[in-house]
Amino acid sequence: MSPEATSWQPPPELRAVADLDLDRTRRRGYPEAVYCEFKTPAQLRLIAAALRERQVRTLFTRAGADQAAAVLDELPEAGYDPEARLLWWPAESPEPSGGLVVIVAAGTSDLPVATEAQRTAEVLGRRTVLVTDVGVAGLHRILRHLDLLRSAAAIVVVAGMDGALPSVVAGLVAAPVVAVPTSVGYGAAFEGLAPLLTMLNSCAPGVAVVNIDNGYGGGHLAAQIAAAPAPD
Amino acid sequence: MSPEATSWQPPPELRAVADLDLDRTRRRGYPEAVYCEFKTPAQLRLIAAALRERQVRTLFTRAGADQAAAVLDELPEAGYDPEARLLWWPAESPEPSGGLVVIVAAGTSDLPVATEAQRTAEVLGRRTVLVTDVGVAGLHRILRHLDLLRSAAAIVVVAGMDGALPSVVAGLVAAPVVAVPTSVGYGAAFEGLAPLLTMLNSCAPGVAVVNIDNGYGGGHLAAQIAAAPAPD
Amino acid sequence: MSPEATSWQPPPELRAVADLDLDRTRRRGYPEAVYCEFKTPAQLRLIAAALRERQVRTLFTRAGADQAAAVLDELPEAGYDPEARLLWWPAESPEPSGGLVVIVAAGTSDLPVATEAQRTAEVLGRRTVLVTDVGVAGLHRILRHLDLLRSAAAIVVVAGMDGALPSVVAGLVAAPVVAVPTSVGYGAAFEGLAPLLTMLNSCAPGVAVVNIDNGYGGGHLAAQIAAAPAPD
Amino acid sequence: MSPEATSWQPPPELRAVADLDLDRTRRRGYPEAVYCEFKTPAQLRLIAAALRERQVRTLFTRAGADQAAAVLDELPEAGYDPEARLLWWPAESPEPSGGLVVIVAAGTSDLPVATEAQRTAEVLGRRTVLVTDVGVAGLHRILRHLDLLRSAAAIVVVAGMDGALPSVVAGLVAAPVVAVPTSVGYGAAFEGLAPLLTMLNSCAPGVAVVNIDNGYGGGHLAAQIAAAPAPD
Amino acid sequence: MSPEATSWQPPPELRAVADLDLDRTRRRGYPEAVYCEFKTPAQLRLIAAALRERQVRTLFTRAGADQAAAVLDELPEAGYDPEARLLWWPAESPEPSGGLVVIVAAGTSDLPVATEAQRTAEVLGRRTVLVTDVGVAGLHRILRHLDLLRSAAAIVVVAGMDGALPSVVAGLVAAPVVAVPTSVGYGAAFEGLAPLLTMLNSCAPGVAVVNIDNGYGGGHLAAQIAAAPAPD
Amino acid sequence: MSPEATSWQPPPELRAVADLDLDRTRRRGYPEAVYCEFKTPAQLRLIAAALRERQVRTLFTRAGADQAAAVLDELPEAGYDPEARLLWWPAESPEPSGGLVVIVAAGTSDLPVATEAQRTAEVLGRRTVLVTDVGVAGLHRILRHLDLLRSAAAIVVVAGMDGALPSVVAGLVAAPVVAVPTSVGYGAAFEGLAPLLTMLNSCAPGVAVVNIDNGYGGGHLAAQIAAAPAPD
Amino acid sequence: MSPEATSWQPPPELRAVADLDLDRTRRRGYPEAVYCEFKTPAQLRLIAAALRERQVRTLFTRAGADQAAAVLDELPEAGYDPEARLLWWPAESPEPSGGLVVIVAAGTSDLPVATEAQRTAEVLGRRTVLVTDVGVAGLHRILRHLDLLRSAAAIVVVAGMDGALPSVVAGLVAAPVVAVPTSVGYGAAFEGLAPLLTMLNSCAPGVAVVNIDNGYGGGHLAAQIAAAPAPD
Amino acid sequence: MSPEATSWQPPPELRAVADLDLDRTRRRGYPEAVYCEFKTPAQLRLIAAALRERQVRTLFTRAGADQAAAVLDELPEAGYDPEARLLWWPAESPEPSGGLVVIVAAGTSDLPVATEAQRTAEVLGRRTVLVTDVGVAGLHRILRHLDLLRSAAAIVVVAGMDGALPSVVAGLVAAPVVAVPTSVGYGAAFEGLAPLLTMLNSCAPGVAVVNIDNGYGGGHLAAQIAAAPAPD
Repeated sequence: MSPEATSWQPPPELRAVADLDLDRTRRRGYPEAVYCEFKTPAQLRLIAAALRERQVRTLFTRAGADQAAAVLDELPEAGYDPEARLLWWPAESPEPSGGLVVIVAAGTSDLPVATEAQRTAEVLGRRTVLVTDVGVAGLHRILRHLDLLRSAAAIVVVAGMDGALPSVVAGLVAAPVVAVPTSVGYGAAFEGLAPLLTMLNSCAPGVAVVNIDNGYGGGHLAAQIAAAPAPD
Repeated sequence: MSPEATSWQPPPELRAVADLDLDRTRRRGYPEAVYCEFKTPAQLRLIAAALRERQVRTLFTRAGADQAAAVLDELPEAGYDPEARLLWWPAESPEPSGGLVVIVAAGTSDLPVATEAQRTAEVLGRRTVLVTDVGVAGLHRILRHLDLLRSAAAIVVVAGMDGALPSVVAGLVAAPVVAVPTSVGYGAAFEGLAPLLTMLNSCAPGVAVVNIDNGYGGGHLAAQIAAAPAPD
Repeated sequence: MSPEATSWQPPPELRAVADLDLDRTRRRGYPEAVYCEFKTPAQLRLIAAALRERQVRTLFTRAGADQAAAVLDELPEAGYDPEARLLWWPAESPEPSGGLVVIVAAGTSDLPVATEAQRTAEVLGRRTVLVTDVGVAGLHRILRHLDLLRSAAAIVVVAGMDGALPSVVAGLVAAPVVAVPTSVGYGAAFEGLAPLLTMLNSCAPGVAVVNIDNGYGGGHLAAQIAAAPAPD
Repeated sequence: MSPEATSWQPPPELRAVADLDLDRTRRRGYPEAVYCEFKTPAQLRLIAAALRERQVRTLFTRAGADQAAAVLDELPEAGYDPEARLLWWPAESPEPSGGLVVIVAAGTSDLPVATEAQRTAEVLGRRTVLVTDVGVAGLHRILRHLDLLRSAAAIVVVAGMDGALPSVVAGLVAAPVVAVPTSVGYGAAFEGLAPLLTMLNSCAPGVAVVNIDNGYGGGHLAAQIAAAPAPD
Repeated sequence: MSPEATSWQPPPELRAVADLDLDRTRRRGYPEAVYCEFKTPAQLRLIAAALRERQVRTLFTRAGADQAAAVLDELPEAGYDPEARLLWWPAESPEPSGGLVVIVAAGTSDLPVATEAQRTAEVLGRRTVLVTDVGVAGLHRILRHLDLLRSAAAIVVVAGMDGALPSVVAGLVAAPVVAVPTSVGYGAAFEGLAPLLTMLNSCAPGVAVVNIDNGYGGGHLAAQIAAAPAPD
Repeated sequence: MSPEATSWQPPPELRAVADLDLDRTRRRGYPEAVYCEFKTPAQLRLIAAALRERQVRTLFTRAGADQAAAVLDELPEAGYDPEARLLWWPAESPEPSGGLVVIVAAGTSDLPVATEAQRTAEVLGRRTVLVTDVGVAGLHRILRHLDLLRSAAAIVVVAGMDGALPSVVAGLVAAPVVAVPTSVGYGAAFEGLAPLLTMLNSCAPGVAVVNIDNGYGGGHLAAQIAAAPAPD
Repeated sequence: MSPEATSWQPPPELRAVADLDLDRTRRRGYPEAVYCEFKTPAQLRLIAAALRERQVRTLFTRAGADQAAAVLDELPEAGYDPEARLLWWPAESPEPSGGLVVIVAAGTSDLPVATEAQRTAEVLGRRTVLVTDVGVAGLHRILRHLDLLRSAAAIVVVAGMDGALPSVVAGLVAAPVVAVPTSVGYGAAFEGLAPLLTMLNSCAPGVAVVNIDNGYGGGHLAAQIAAAPAPD
Repeated sequence: MSPEATSWQPPPELRAVADLDLDRTRRRGYPEAVYCEFKTPAQLRLIAAALRERQVRTLFTRAGADQAAAVLDELPEAGYDPEARLLWWPAESPEPSGGLVVIVAAGTSDLPVATEAQRTAEVLGRRTVLVTDVGVAGLHRILRHLDLLRSAAAIVVVAGMDGALPSVVAGLVAAPVVAVPTSVGYGAAFEGLAPLLTMLNSCAPGVAVVNIDNGYGGGHLAAQIAAAPAPD
């Protein structure tokens, strides 16, 4: 545990709502992220102000319109993608390093989650390419991108419904596949449970599963995988 | 309702355990089937004797060793496949009619269920071909059989784990795909729930789902679909 | 895989949102379908415009009012059934071929899903008849239609609540029964889970189950099954 | 609360394992029942001895072979049905009163549970008739018994798999239907969950559902309902 | 099956939406019920008009404000309880017969479902008494009503949360207890699943379970059970 | 049972909606609580008036804006925390007794539930301290409060998502940990099911689990545990 | 964190299988417990030998016959209760302190879990009393013990099936109730899920739930709660 | 797709049971694996013989005693770990490359799965270290290994019960954490469902989840993550 992590004294009104993990970048090498869902605009304003004061690179995930407005009040120069419900500050991503992250969206309806993954990987310092609407119902569509897929250091596959695409992709490449199930689908998809189970049961090894609709988590994991190995 | 279906008077000891649907072939065009699980050998002997007396073509499904022995006591000339836990009487299948039924087993471990489907379709009067171990983790294996798949009037795809194969196959062919989930897999397959959900959520239309490990049901449905040859 | 499928170059703004499977009719023999749920009106306009340009027969499923309006902006002459949330283009169905598809709705509340199935089967080239409100609580209602049911090459049975009707129908006919569970019912129907399980566990063989409320999938599968007329 | 219920002082070794509800017959009008599952033979011997000493009419449910032997050690003259895993003491049922209880088993495999229900209703003082193997896959089988069904004051319907029979029966009669789901079926029956949900969601009112494989509970409830004869 | 049930020819626009079970009263002895959820006001107007024309006593269940208004347009003299979302026509219940039905609501929040049960039992011809807010957290509240409970021919117990009240009541009386779980409760009640399971697992025999929030079903079943007065 | 508990005669209009457990404080030592969800404002006004008349210390839980307004109409001097949806009357808590209750919120989004727990414990007579945003992703945050945690007689840990914090806290202290899962999280949290299961499976003994989002229940249990000061 | 906790150097063969938390008694005030399920006899022998060498008071939970024999090889003087699958060493419990712990078993079948709870509380230094077979189906049985229940500082209620007893007990007393669901019951108990949910949804506050069949956890939590005597 | 992958012609008896993916190493860079569960010894002998003939590096997972014996018949020089139910051929792992893989077992009972992960990573060419019994109930145990954890390129955390350890570890390091839930635990762990959900809901980003008890999958994914980046 790092004692210096606690040297800054946050104002009491902030301590009543959050205990910012300012040590996280030092400890983990990746920026802080603020999960906005269930937080009030007032709470987000307090948090955003403190992060600006401390100059901490930060993502704000799952931000609805009101929540995004509150963050932008304090950090007007932040990047913002409403479809992905994501903000990031500062708006400029760091100089890319590590390997390529390819994000694959099985269907158009999976784009919001795929975009959240792509933005996250970029803010964490990776180059990215996004491929859209290449579900297994028309297999030639994903096979067309085989060279791109094989050039990636990590692949994020975002899929709802049957969630079958990660198994197919993982069977074709050497890189790990990060599988993100989405809540897209008919009733028996049970809000993402069906593709989640499909991905956990992939018959191809090398599939890393994250939470339903968690584009942020998928992009973060892919960015970690595609980092250069730790120096000796 | 057919009054003549009730003209035969079964012996009382049989009526105490079963009310054979001898009318089924006339009404539905397909043979009777006796589900052996949970039935005692004594009950099966009574049933088998009555079917022989009435000369009714019959399948016996889910027959364990003791149950199969009881059936064979009464119908020694019946066909029997222990791996598929299936018996059929008489042993000779009818002259094939209709279109081709192709059965596809995703993995070697799915073979017992796939074989049950194949035998059932044959007893119901269809020509069949079985293709084994062509899961989506090595996509070239199923693509190698594309011509065969496209010549089928109905395709049965048997798969456990991620259950992704029916979606891939259905996306390649005009014929209906009958998907049979199996209980093969690691813990989060939940005894077949995972592939069942995958198949119900297929992103390719044309997938007909039946019960977990129900090779009999899959073969039966395929035989019905293929009753007429596939249109050109 | 067909190389010609990729000869047309879609505009970049379309490629950012969709990779249309224009090859599907050639490969599968059935028209393309666009799943509208979760898609924005802007995305749908791009897709509809491209389909019109390429003259591809298409269904648009699960279209809410705004989504339907976007499609009709680009394809004003498309057919549209708001209750079924379905559009189809061109509005004229092809000349019917194959066998008859009978659609059975267990209750009045199941009509939107049943209508979606009926429309789909017609757009795919089948003759259809729809029978309404014939649930098993009053058995004489379905028995009244026995001749019609026995004339079908495929029967779609749409039911919520106990989902018992497909078992009853399948026990009366030779043709395959496509069972579509709906989310109609009280709490322990669990949004369609109860009738889904009932249908998967049908004690009568010959029941093909599709996803909850998936009238499109049910109609598509029935149209495939009925592609050849029912055998005599 | 009845103070006299506590006047008898059970021996300490009995009090360590059970607090017999000797007051139950007075309070509820029905005999005590001892649930044998999970109880040791030694515990059952203590209980049986006390019941004999107090001359309390009793059922012993879910008794495996060892457990039944322990009960018979103390109550050798008890009735015993190994298939139903049920014992009752004394072996003679009381003089029948009230209305008729008809027990219906959808399939032969449901017979152990149906028999448990029948025996229970008899021990509680009802006349019973058992009808076997009349599932909805062959509807004429249940319709053949319509007069019998309509003469009942209560009907117990025991079914696994799709559990559809109670809905069909309830739609034909005035008497309440007690539905007992069984664990008979393929994988997606989930050990009786599927028929349980079907029965809870019956589209015909008048279906009373009890626990999976709980023939005792079904017979008990039917005996209570039929305590008075069916109204004309 | 009764041929006369089909002698009336409904207008075509009605046949397109419903197949009224006008035979039900003759066959089952209880009035028809129209489940309004998912039905449009236009459909309900057609149905209500036909029922008035045929003079069929009818309940309308799960009627929202718009749906109730549509029914009242055609049947302005119908009875209506908005809290219970129930209408009945004619407004006057038949002369009471049979035994007493006692309805017990565990908490104030369960009142809408309990009232639906009470109204239903009255329309079906039973005398009723409603007892409110007597959950097991304060046991003296239910014990205070012991004489009333023991005078009932059938008891409906409506409860959410832990659903424990039916077990307690059933242990005190001879009459059957109809248990209606409600969706009242915190998160782990899972919209009524928790009390549903509690009731199915009642350690006291004599508990008949119906669907979650199904006050109509509970009242109907109780009315059937109480058709004959409770035996002395 | 206390006969005097029934001596007060509530007005009939109140008896129609509630049977207040005025005996509860005497019997259990803790104030009455009124669960407001699903209750109408009119019902709450009746209840609040009666409680004021009888001078019964009371909590009102799960009160939405309209429900809170109804309570405040009758008890304008009540305490009210809109975030926690809690009211209490009288507004002044009793003089603190017993040991310290520490409430720990894993994240800012868990604050409404944590505040409900804190308020409840105070109204029940305990001293409390609230610690916020100390989830296990940054372990130093909770370790910083080790002395405070070890001074508590009971600790309430409120957490959504992985629900891992109670296990970590319980492993560090002698006092019981009351774990309150929240519905905060991504899709596979399944509205609080995931943290609920985590807490039930804590590898550290001493974790007492209550219902999802049930801050009232957590605070109540902690107040009971801390009724006596922690032993030295 | 206590550095001295690591001063003892375990032998390498022990480190390969376990990292004993010898610091636990100092940190938490309660003895170490070794969970035996899934451990091999060889592993348990290594662990038992180390604990004897370090003289650490220890419980061994979920020990089957082979596992118990392995522990007794190394710690022949340990206490052992085969029914509860529990061992404890040394065999003598510490001098009792704190308040009384009452353990209540709803049925005889719940005794193994109840005994595990009782033994655990005794090894942790509490006085205990065990009450057996007092389920809510015969309410007078639990009411008979009201004075004993009200003298307890903590009450452990062990119940399967409907799991209703903790709600009833909690409504009668001031002390916290620790509810332990068991896997005793018919099919819809789903191996303890039903009573678990019942207990989590208790309508009486003050119920602390632990894992299914976890008598050890229930006894441990109760011992912690009762560490200080109940307040007057 | 690689045409040369199909140049070898397997013997017909092998083709009847398996279609070996001999192309996998070329396509994915990792050895073939044969899932032994559900395969017969005869099938495994055929497969093993073919792999030896083709000299393909292979893992055999989930091999019970009979299955392992069959493999060793054909490949007597293979490596074999009975606890992990794993075989690998040839026995010598390749020269290690890439970064370090640290495997962490939360408890002793998790060792079989952890060992399977460790062996797999070694056969795939990584250096490994295994740390045992460091669950979060005694947090100092995992913190003691912080330097080791931070030196890893990938960390596999194997845990049952609450599954909380991956969240804690991921919050401390930069490398991705591969989380493997196990079926170790009490009833409400539901055979691994509880830790699976915990891991999917980790509040620390960077957790990659695989299937329950899937040590092979966890080791494989970690080996991929810890490989050196693909050459340009």
